[in-house]
This record gives sequence, C-alpha cells and structure tokens, in this order.
Amino acid sequence: MKVVCIGSGNVATHLASAFKASGADLLQVYSKTLANASALASVLNSQAIDNLDQLDRSADLYLLSVKDDAITSVLKQLKGLKGLVVHTAGAVSLSVFKDQGLSRYGVLYPLQTFSKNRALDFSSVPLCLEAGTAADLRILHQIAAQVSGSVYEVNSDDRKSLHLAAVFACNFSNHLYHLSATLLERNHLDFDMLKPLILETAAKVQTAKPYDVQTGPAVRGDEETMNRHLDLLQDQPSLTSIYETLSKSIKKTYL
Amino acid sequence: MKVVCIGSGNVATHLASAFKASGADLLQVYSKTLANASALASVLNSQAIDNLDQLDRSADLYLLSVKDDAITSVLKQLKGLKGLVVHTAGAVSLSVFKDQGLSRYGVLYPLQTFSKNRALDFSSVPLCLEAGTAADLRILHQIAAQVSGSVYEVNSDDRKSLHLAAVFACNFSNHLYHLSATLLERNHLDFDMLKPLILETAAKVQTAKPYDVQTGPAVRGDEETMNRHLDLLQDQPSLTSIYETLSKSIKKTYL
Repeated sequence: MKVVCIGSGNVATHLASAFKASGADLLQVYSKTLANASALASVLNSQAIDNLDQLDRSADLYLLSVKDDAITSVLKQLKGLKGLVVHTAGAVSLSVFKDQGLSRYGVLYPLQTFSKNRALDFSSVPLCLEAGTAADLRILHQIAAQVSGSVYEVNSDDRKSLHLAAVFACNFSNHLYHLSATLLERNHLDFDMLKPLILETAAKVQTAKPYDVQTGPAVRGDEETMNRHLDLLQDQPSLTSIYETLSKSIKKTYL
Repeated sequence: MKVVCIGSGNVATHLASAFKASGADLLQVYSKTLANASALASVLNSQAIDNLDQLDRSADLYLLSVKDDAITSVLKQLKGLKGLVVHTAGAVSLSVFKDQGLSRYGVLYPLQTFSKNRALDFSSVPLCLEAGTAADLRILHQIAAQVSGSVYEVNSDDRKSLHLAAVFACNFSNHLYHLSATLLERNHLDFDMLKPLILETAAKVQTAKPYDVQTGPAVRGDEETMNRHLDLLQDQPSLTSIYETLSKSIKKTYL
C-alpha cells in the first residue's frame, strides 16, 4: 500500500509510523514547514515536500492530519485524486469533503492522546471509521485492521460526541493532574507521590464503571472536609471555582 | 508484630491485608457492625468484635481506619493503650490525639484509592508517616517498610495539601470519566472506546509533567471547537459549567 501523509504533527507522526511498521510504503510527507516534513520523512524513509503541487498522485491512501481549520484549504489542492483521502479529526464532519472534487474520501479518527516523543502501542488505539461509500468503508476497514485491533464504525455526529467525551476524560483530567502538581509544589512535595494514585484511578475504570468507584468527600456528602479544602484554596479563586463546580456535580450525581 | 484493626472499610481492608501478608498477627478486627468485622476478620484469620470493651490491649499496633468524624469518639475508648495507635486519614491532623490519654500515636496515611473487591500491589502505595515522638516515628518507619517500598515523612499541614491534591487528581478525574461515560451513553456508544485514552492519559504523566503534555482545544485556543462542544452540551447545564470552568483554567494556564 502506498501512503502519503499530509501533516507532520503528533497524530500524523504516530499514524504514519504505524502504517510504515505494518509494511506500507510512505511515499511522501507534506508540511508547509519543510523542516517539519523532513523530520518525519527521515524516520519514515520518505520524501519531504512543502508544496502540494509536488504531491505524488499515485498513492492508495492520503492521510490528512492537519489542524481542523486547515482541512478545507488543503482539500482544495487535492482535487481529482484517485486514492482514498481520509482526515483524522474528531470534531470535523464527513461533509467537509462535499463539493471538493474528490470521489473517494473518509475519516480515520484515532481516539488517543499522542505526544511526539512518547512510544505507544498503536494496536490498541481505537480507530473510528467513516467513508463516503460502502465500498470505501470496507476498504478503510481493511486498511485500519493493519494497524489496530480496535476498529469501530462511527458516523460524524457520534464522532463529535466521542471527541467531546475525550475532552472530559483526557484533556480535563490532565489539567487536574497539573493543578494537583501545583498544589504539591506550593508545599515542596514531590509529584511522584501522586503518580500511583493517578495510575490506579485510570486502571480501576478499565474493569469497573466510574460511577461505581467514586470516592472522596463529595460522594460521602462530607461537608466538613470540603469546607476545610476550600479554606486551603482561599487565595486561589480558579481552583476554588473548579473544586466547587466538580463537587456540586458529584453531589448532584449521587446524593 | 501483633496488630489490631479498628475499622473494616476499604482502607482498613487493604492495609490490614498487607500487614497480614507481611507476616503480622492480626489479633482483632473491630467494627460497630459485627457482620462487617466478621467479613474482614475471616479473611485475616482474626477475631471479630463490635465492642471496644473487648479490645485486646496487648497489640503492638492499632490501625484506626474509621470515618474522619468517628476518630475522636473511638479514641476516647482507647485510653491507656501501650501500643502505637495510628490513624490513616489524610485530612485529620496529628493533634486529634492530644489529651486523649495515649502516649504513643501517629499517622499512617496511604495515598491511594481503594476498592474492597479490587486487588492492588500494596508495595507501591505511598505511605505518609507522622508520629508523636521521634522514637515512634522510627518505629513507624520500620512498620511501614514491611508493606510498602514508598514511605514518606509528611507533617499534618502537608498531608492536608496532599489529600486536597488527591481529590483533584483522583476523585475529580474519576467523576470526569463518569461524565464522559454519560456522554457516550446518550449516543449508544461503548465506554470501552475511551478506556485506552484514559489509561494513556494517566500513564503519560508517570514520566512527563502534566503541564507539558496538555492537549485539546482549550490549550490550542481553538474557540471554534469549544463553541461546537458547548452547542452539544446546551441541554446539560451542569456539564456546560464544568466545560467552561476547566477550559477557562486551561486557557489561563497557557495562553
């Protein structure tokens, strides 16, 4: 399979590397910044380009992993391609491909958080697929199965909900980790102390429902402890607001 | 070492089981509900009691793992004990032992989230120690080292901050997992899809600083995506409030 990677960010890097590892031929990596294209292309034994006029038009698959708001402008330069063009964005509808002069298109959304310098077992990353035709959806299934054992068909509306759910489960949780780190720093305590707790909290819900394993003062209705916590936060209005908002939501869920 | 466990909840169960596994002799398990004491005592090959008048006064260590607001009333019934009495509460100061007629006391706070039916490698659970005297702190170190390889000295003020940080990192994160599950349920999507993301988000900060691995629309200042997310949440005021509060905090942190 011949693949062209349009984009060189975190998702592009992990996805293109997974295809390379599965035996695909990575023809080209495009980025508007040549140095970024080159950095990824060198790993993939691929050609770096910074101009879509140089695009190899013979690929089977074009992975479009650019910022959400750049997708439309890139698509305008892909008119007439015969290969399957897929974007990888959670929050962008399949309809972005409408009237762009492409007959074969789809979505391959990896539901995972990627960092460039962090290795990851791609075979367990859920891939959410959608395509313009049933035939291309079948082909996309075969393509996805080469890199992941966890493949789902998800339409654009459901994908948007998934993306939103991922913001709560991942982006917001990571920010809470950061805030907890700042609380420790103020007392010169080591963030290492919290790491087993963070990992166990995530590990628990791999087998239990989050609803069933909620712990802490809010779910117990322990107002005394919550008030003492708010006292500790009294010079930090932003953390106070988060503490109150989340505790209120927990109490509303259980009490 | 002879140990008496006062309390039969999640923390008592895991801590007493860890001491049992390390070779300690669990003399008794107390709970005000005899059935609860018996359930744990049978696992520990121990005697169940529901009246502190029956307390074996010959133990080396008394683990006091009851609800925070029950500690004082239990202490009143422990007057004159010769063994070391430790509570296991994050949010309760060492001063709770003052004027309770005990000469040897301390704190052994395990910084972890425990569920009764979930096995856990206790050896990596951080234990935070404090004691009334330097001699008892040394003894508590020896005791703690029998069940965990991760032992810290933490005074009462720092322990309160740790406890608060744990609420952010664990209790609030778990609630976000629950909220993300409800978002998926509304669209009949499987919570399984989010599990690798949740686990990787927690795994990432075992080696990276949370500050350095923040992803999502808020850290990018992607207002368009955030507005679309808020549109999806328009009939859910509680989730809207959480989305806005946490996004605002992320933007304040980075932008």
